[in-house]
Amino acid sequence: MEHEIINRLKAITGDAFTISEKDRVESYIYDEVEENFRPTPSDNNVVVKPDSVDQVVEIMKLANEKEIPVVVRGGATGLAGGCTPVLPSIIITMERMNRIVEIDEKNMVAVLEAGVTLMDLLEELEKYDGLSFPVHPGDEGAQMGGMAVTNAGGARAVRHGVMRKHIMGLEVVLPNGEVMELGGKLIKNNAGYNLLQLILGSEGTLAVVTKVILKIYPKERYSATLIAPFERIEDACDSVMEILKSGNIPLAVEYMDKRLFVDTAKMLGMKWQAEKGKADIMIILSEKTESNLFETVRSINEICQAHNSFELLYAGKQSEQQEILKIRSQHYELIKDEICDSYDMAVPVSEVPDFILGLKKLAAEYNTGTNIVGHIADGNVHNDMLYLPDGSIPEYAAELKQKMYNLCLSMGGTITGEHGVGKIRNREICQQLGETQVALMKGIKQVFDPKGIMNPGVLFAE
Amino acid sequence: MEHEIINRLKAITGDAFTISEKDRVESYIYDEVEENFRPTPSDNNVVVKPDSVDQVVEIMKLANEKEIPVVVRGGATGLAGGCTPVLPSIIITMERMNRIVEIDEKNMVAVLEAGVTLMDLLEELEKYDGLSFPVHPGDEGAQMGGMAVTNAGGARAVRHGVMRKHIMGLEVVLPNGEVMELGGKLIKNNAGYNLLQLILGSEGTLAVVTKVILKIYPKERYSATLIAPFERIEDACDSVMEILKSGNIPLAVEYMDKRLFVDTAKMLGMKWQAEKGKADIMIILSEKTESNLFETVRSINEICQAHNSFELLYAGKQSEQQEILKIRSQHYELIKDEICDSYDMAVPVSEVPDFILGLKKLAAEYNTGTNIVGHIADGNVHNDMLYLPDGSIPEYAAELKQKMYNLCLSMGGTITGEHGVGKIRNREICQQLGETQVALMKGIKQVFDPKGIMNPGVLFAE
Repeated sequence: MEHEIINRLKAITGDAFTISEKDRVESYIYDEVEENFRPTPSDNNVVVKPDSVDQVVEIMKLANEKEIPVVVRGGATGLAGGCTPVLPSIIITMERMNRIVEIDEKNMVAVLEAGVTLMDLLEELEKYDGLSFPVHPGDEGAQMGGMAVTNAGGARAVRHGVMRKHIMGLEVVLPNGEVMELGGKLIKNNAGYNLLQLILGSEGTLAVVTKVILKIYPKERYSATLIAPFERIEDACDSVMEILKSGNIPLAVEYMDKRLFVDTAKMLGMKWQAEKGKADIMIILSEKTESNLFETVRSINEICQAHNSFELLYAGKQSEQQEILKIRSQHYELIKDEICDSYDMAVPVSEVPDFILGLKKLAAEYNTGTNIVGHIADGNVHNDMLYLPDGSIPEYAAELKQKMYNLCLSMGGTITGEHGVGKIRNREICQQLGETQVALMKGIKQVFDPKGIMNPGVLFAE
Repeated sequence: MEHEIINRLKAITGDAFTISEKDRVESYIYDEVEENFRPTPSDNNVVVKPDSVDQVVEIMKLANEKEIPVVVRGGATGLAGGCTPVLPSIIITMERMNRIVEIDEKNMVAVLEAGVTLMDLLEELEKYDGLSFPVHPGDEGAQMGGMAVTNAGGARAVRHGVMRKHIMGLEVVLPNGEVMELGGKLIKNNAGYNLLQLILGSEGTLAVVTKVILKIYPKERYSATLIAPFERIEDACDSVMEILKSGNIPLAVEYMDKRLFVDTAKMLGMKWQAEKGKADIMIILSEKTESNLFETVRSINEICQAHNSFELLYAGKQSEQQEILKIRSQHYELIKDEICDSYDMAVPVSEVPDFILGLKKLAAEYNTGTNIVGHIADGNVHNDMLYLPDGSIPEYAAELKQKMYNLCLSMGGTITGEHGVGKIRNREICQQLGETQVALMKGIKQVFDPKGIMNPGVLFAE
């Protein structure tokens, strides 16, 4: 990066908060996408750490004037390469803009700078009696700005939906440095096109989010975890749909291949308690009252039994629930050396059994396997591609992936349910969206960012 | 309209379904906006009644080729003049595209042609055990396409939110005749900019909605209505915020000036039972189980008492509840001859008391009054402008309205909470949005509709 740029950035942020030394910049260029398939970063970047919206404005004005690409970095917990700069870039990292501006108990709203992490927010809400925020993408290092622009999801979408449902307002800085307030502490607002919803899911390609106005909720104090073992995945999914229809909505419904439950437990020195069955689902419940919790457990038990489940296992104590959750969340440790790539497809819930069986069948056609882990009550299935036995990436990887995508799309699915397009699906996404939608999206991008400086390579291949 | 156009339209729809006779066209040019302030319609329009998406495609291709404005008409229950053609137009009325394509009980989704009315949908869902759809803008003649593009709200937004939260997919026809499918039966989908959310609330300016994929829900079978009388509006609002925070979310919380409750009851030959107090709120509850209902009533009663309410009145029987609802919904009959204009502002819930008192004070400064009716748990306040005693529109009307808007905006509010911008707020909206947002919206409009044929005059003044 030119000295002039670096010096002007230092003048904006102070010397300590503009970083141009290559070895230090290095720790700001990746997210959590699999190493094999992550985008190739530029090696000519500068990192800036603004402390205020005014500094962001100055940075954007400079970037706009010089037409330098800008990559905004939140917690970097993404899985789509979204915050990896593929062209020489100014990397704006939001870590210092981490102030909790306001917890407004009257309106049940939190006003947060974009760099506030999910962990910061949850800790702050602990101080207020009975408040919480439900969306949880897994990693609490995720920042609010990042969760907003990626429309983060996670296991709890079953009961609470994704970020899009909870964001009431944004402060953003446009590529030309203009500041724009969208929405507010308003429950109803029909003033023109919903630019706020457009920013959500735009993955840093339209504007820099500097502040988030988030709906917060009363905490649900009663929880339990059920394991429902089934012989057939079809029965498991039929049960899930019946449960959703009953209105007793679980916090999360998680599926993993049985061997992942059993072997992860073993790896952790525990035992997977469900001995019978070949398709187990983990149902996490969260309710406001104890009687609601019991009623929900009763109803779910009845539904699962009616769909041929074996006896359900019930975990009511926190410690028991955490053990089960640990097995679910640590499975990646078990398989990480086996897998070279992983996916984020989603299909209508009714298609989940055929989708899972179809993915297994496709893998078998190549004499390989695929591990299935899924938020099956929202149709989001994470499966993977295995290395060859010799540890190399199979030659058929692209072909097999394409067949998996074809299966997904033939079922009315999406190739990215929650992780986003980022820089790893920017070519693939066109087959799902088609030319017309891509052209409209490019047109919108052009309206916001006529010089194309915002996160080039995301959504659309360069 | 030129003969050539009419003939080509007849060739598309069949002779019977293209109407060009002025007296017949007349019944297709207004919605329900107050007569005094409705937009001036063009007197040179043709009405077409397509029966299929293919016919809509052909109509749009013709309109696009000839650059003729197109106004899409749903149930015409809107209150913003959105479906009044202000330029010589092709009016596409969706009434024949009223097929219920599918009620998918597994995915809890309804697939509906755009002309399906809310009444059609609710009647159809009655056939399925225990299914329903919660959004209710008041008039069941509203059509799904219209409810989608106006992001309809209504009293039940407290518990269920607005249309935006429930639409999973759309089929739309672009101005150039291209058909586009957005979303689907998917709970999670992060494939690029959310064009679907952009269409919702676009009021017919971007595309013709031909099909809607809607989330449906288990019916809540237990209901009750409470009247909570307070001496002070501040206490009423504090109670509402405390109720929302408790997590016992009512279906609706409605406020009207006391005299509207009392006199509407009298007009209907009934009696408003709450004798004490000056600020009554009507709390409608809807729950899945009887025990939840009782628990909610208990909790709300406790909260209201703690905020100085007089004794709450409880209506549990359907007939009792309907009487109260009738008083709420018939108040317009009481005042309709007094009012020359009405508004749709919304503010953060915490600002509602100051907003209501401020509106009254502003009116008093002009020696007039303003009736207040509001969905106060979502901050949406409908107030009005009174005729002068001689029945004329006051000269100060525009000035007083502007002061009301200023008050609203100073509180972080919006000048349209649910009715939309339409053709009656297309100049006013700029003061709320500011130049930057308006420019972005115009840019987006240009991307979708480069010839500007879609509902000209909506959102942006011509």
